[in-house]
Amino acid sequence: MQNRARVLIDCKDSKGLVYNVSKVFYDLDLNIDHNREFVDKENSKFFMRTVVTGKFDVDKLFKELEAITPKDAIIKIIEPKRKKIVIMATKESHCLGDILIRWESGELDADIEAVVANHKDLQSLTHRFNIPFNYISADNLSREEHEQKVISTLKDIDFDYIVLAKYMRILSSDFVDRFKWRIINIHHSFLPAFIGANPYKQAHSRGVKIIGATAHFVTSDLDEGPIISQDVIPVNHYYNWRDMQKAGKDVEKIVLSKALSLVLNDRVFINQNKTVVF
Amino acid sequence: MQNRARVLIDCKDSKGLVYNVSKVFYDLDLNIDHNREFVDKENSKFFMRTVVTGKFDVDKLFKELEAITPKDAIIKIIEPKRKKIVIMATKESHCLGDILIRWESGELDADIEAVVANHKDLQSLTHRFNIPFNYISADNLSREEHEQKVISTLKDIDFDYIVLAKYMRILSSDFVDRFKWRIINIHHSFLPAFIGANPYKQAHSRGVKIIGATAHFVTSDLDEGPIISQDVIPVNHYYNWRDMQKAGKDVEKIVLSKALSLVLNDRVFINQNKTVVF
Amino acid sequence: MQNRARVLIDCKDSKGLVYNVSKVFYDLDLNIDHNREFVDKENSKFFMRTVVTGKFDVDKLFKELEAITPKDAIIKIIEPKRKKIVIMATKESHCLGDILIRWESGELDADIEAVVANHKDLQSLTHRFNIPFNYISADNLSREEHEQKVISTLKDIDFDYIVLAKYMRILSSDFVDRFKWRIINIHHSFLPAFIGANPYKQAHSRGVKIIGATAHFVTSDLDEGPIISQDVIPVNHYYNWRDMQKAGKDVEKIVLSKALSLVLNDRVFINQNKTVVF
Amino acid sequence: MQNRARVLIDCKDSKGLVYNVSKVFYDLDLNIDHNREFVDKENSKFFMRTVVTGKFDVDKLFKELEAITPKDAIIKIIEPKRKKIVIMATKESHCLGDILIRWESGELDADIEAVVANHKDLQSLTHRFNIPFNYISADNLSREEHEQKVISTLKDIDFDYIVLAKYMRILSSDFVDRFKWRIINIHHSFLPAFIGANPYKQAHSRGVKIIGATAHFVTSDLDEGPIISQDVIPVNHYYNWRDMQKAGKDVEKIVLSKALSLVLNDRVFINQNKTVVF
Repeated sequence: MQNRARVLIDCKDSKGLVYNVSKVFYDLDLNIDHNREFVDKENSKFFMRTVVTGKFDVDKLFKELEAITPKDAIIKIIEPKRKKIVIMATKESHCLGDILIRWESGELDADIEAVVANHKDLQSLTHRFNIPFNYISADNLSREEHEQKVISTLKDIDFDYIVLAKYMRILSSDFVDRFKWRIINIHHSFLPAFIGANPYKQAHSRGVKIIGATAHFVTSDLDEGPIISQDVIPVNHYYNWRDMQKAGKDVEKIVLSKALSLVLNDRVFINQNKTVVF
Repeated sequence: MQNRARVLIDCKDSKGLVYNVSKVFYDLDLNIDHNREFVDKENSKFFMRTVVTGKFDVDKLFKELEAITPKDAIIKIIEPKRKKIVIMATKESHCLGDILIRWESGELDADIEAVVANHKDLQSLTHRFNIPFNYISADNLSREEHEQKVISTLKDIDFDYIVLAKYMRILSSDFVDRFKWRIINIHHSFLPAFIGANPYKQAHSRGVKIIGATAHFVTSDLDEGPIISQDVIPVNHYYNWRDMQKAGKDVEKIVLSKALSLVLNDRVFINQNKTVVF
Repeated sequence: MQNRARVLIDCKDSKGLVYNVSKVFYDLDLNIDHNREFVDKENSKFFMRTVVTGKFDVDKLFKELEAITPKDAIIKIIEPKRKKIVIMATKESHCLGDILIRWESGELDADIEAVVANHKDLQSLTHRFNIPFNYISADNLSREEHEQKVISTLKDIDFDYIVLAKYMRILSSDFVDRFKWRIINIHHSFLPAFIGANPYKQAHSRGVKIIGATAHFVTSDLDEGPIISQDVIPVNHYYNWRDMQKAGKDVEKIVLSKALSLVLNDRVFINQNKTVVF
Repeated sequence: MQNRARVLIDCKDSKGLVYNVSKVFYDLDLNIDHNREFVDKENSKFFMRTVVTGKFDVDKLFKELEAITPKDAIIKIIEPKRKKIVIMATKESHCLGDILIRWESGELDADIEAVVANHKDLQSLTHRFNIPFNYISADNLSREEHEQKVISTLKDIDFDYIVLAKYMRILSSDFVDRFKWRIINIHHSFLPAFIGANPYKQAHSRGVKIIGATAHFVTSDLDEGPIISQDVIPVNHYYNWRDMQKAGKDVEKIVLSKALSLVLNDRVFINQNKTVVF
């Protein structure tokens, strides 16, 4: 019986780590299908992602890796299992739609457990794919009250990640901390340019010749979380801000879906306020 | 009562064309909302696209423009009217899905009259959007027999353009000529690199560092029609051909949808085997 | 005897401008080699750049254009004449070197009258091309004192534009105003991201996945002048800030040289704090 | 006394290679500064590039690595030493100039031993940098005769790589074989599109919307050698072929210099007709 697992190691750098880890794999007679490591010398941090195959006991493998890595090491052994996501959105359909089409084709390495939205606009699109749509209006509610309703809905759902697919509300620190490193957002600018509201209006007003989009983990600092993926497209003086917004949608959805794919494949490590992407 | 129209002029170049055309607009008291012209000096060809608003009689405008342009001039006055498309596809859903999502959101400037496919794979996706799906198998049929069946289906549909959204069969000259300059295809390579079958296998075998996609009008010369839009993404030695194929899907769908949008907005002129895109 | 000129018109938008301007050209029997116009509807501004050939008297052409354009119109008729530039730099050679090589090959549409630098590092490179090098140290000088020395040097030089080719000092409002719309700078970030000092350190610290460069006209607001050209390149977690700086040099020099070429060809209009680039 | 070396291993893949190699480094008490490996599963090939520091004897390190790698393994231990290059060119200066400016600034990790050219056009530029210029006219000579003269000149020069910086002559198999994997060329198209002469004319004639450049190792199959680096820029219908050629120069020089930098840093492995680039 053949196993397959992604082994992730995130720890303080120290001499011989590659040797010691590869020795564990070698002694257990595991095949290495893919392997990437990175040392952040500035912060003396070590990151490694290895895909191994062979006959192995996960607990034993974990203990052996624990034995040869520094005390603070975060070790994950992730066996093939479809992940689960919840998508939060507002009115715009391009990011949600892109993920739905990928899911339909089997390209998305996850199941979409539910869509949660503060407007009803996306209900019919979501229902076309027979996915539960949770409409939670924010009308007449404080941020806390609204988030409590969302949290209450999320409590009944089993999921790994929350994808903010153009969810146009700011999340409180409480909400973010509750799902630490599990919320991915798409920001419609080339961060850190144009933080905050209406990036396309800001971009048009500044007269930029390129616009972009940024997928990042959400932290309690607005638009300051670790960046996973970015891309850009050229614009010119013919574009008014609505043209920029329209053109920008294509970048937004591709960047978000790419970041989501990287996260679902456990290719993204958090390194303080940055990411290491293998 | 205010009219609005796109005026397209495609003719032999001659002195004073801009003056004469703008004089017609001026004398008829029309506003120019957008205007672009291009002279291909090599072939002495003139192309102009103007969006005019005002009170005007289309026949009168046409006659006045006819009077001041060369005899061979192709003049089109296109009033705002939603265009109609038919999508032909095979098994892959990313291009079809991208167009469906744009249609759903109202972003697509056209109605999708039908999907025609030589496999059943995309039926459920198409039906999710309540769009007619015509499954026309090519099994045990000659190219001509199959195309006759397709043509017979198309005869009952009113449409402006056929979009080949990863339709994996070669069309005969007869078919192409019947819908001259009305068929748009997405080719999964940066043409003219990798003409023909399995471009990603070819690209991988050649060891390229960039892959691309090309949207073009279909002519009877395979993969030789006028190019409307192209884009590329970087790859590296980690990509096997299936990885390239997967990564390429994002470029394919964006390039096809962009070309489709240009065509639907009457921004594309044919200039022999090339395009002029305003 | 055949003349050739670039005709630039920058004025308030009003009906019939294209007609009236093309009528002037037509009545004077001029050929239009290239023509581009743009209307900024938001600000009701009209921009037009036409290359005309034929037999004409510049003063007569100017007066006829003046007669049919609004009072505030800025009309320029620019006959073929090699422009002259002064390059200001500090220590880094990539932008200066790129311009020198283009000048040597005849590709640059300008003569380099002098290099002015606040360090001696680039003297030998400049002298290799037999171009005057003016070393004006800023040591022990106030900004005003140093700029006075620079201005005093510039007074003896006949030039059209100042190119800041990695000139690492901030210019005072006085200096900028003296050479209004005649100073082009390359900023080593994708503005408005990372305004100010050490953009690559800022970019590295923020963990961006793309870095860029921005060529812009210099105004008294630091890094806020109208953007002429921008471009970007991908980076990843392997890049420390010095790697970013090194990789960024290629973008900086290409973006600056491209912007310079556009300006030298009179293709750039100022539209408030933005540019219109034909 | 501290050593530093790049260790390159290129061999048949086999189980435990990473473990065995890292064990050698560990046992010799070497630090790993950078490490990358890649397994080409299709061809069962293993590639590894490691930068090690520490006190070590090169011969001993070599023997220990030889002992634990397959028989066919190509092992290289490259100590820090400035490489030497010869540049071959014809008339165009942009690629040569780009390399000269990088050399002048100290950015190029090599010394330029000589320029060899079949025209005199680049002599003055080369001499500005006090680099020997060898003019070897091909007039009235057969390909063989001309190459013999070039070879005779090269015999007196000590160099690691030949850089074809827009050398517009085809090299014979004899010449190429003599300097196997030591000749880098820049081709002015996005290979394999537009192989052969006048790629920009071909590109213009085909009406492409993107043009590119390709740096590759030279083999006896024209334009078929392993690709090191590629990049592209957008063009449109306004570009005639000379405009494409002019715009293409910027891509050509950056792609060539980037490929050269990768090769000089021993980051490029040959994997049959492809490259592995770390």
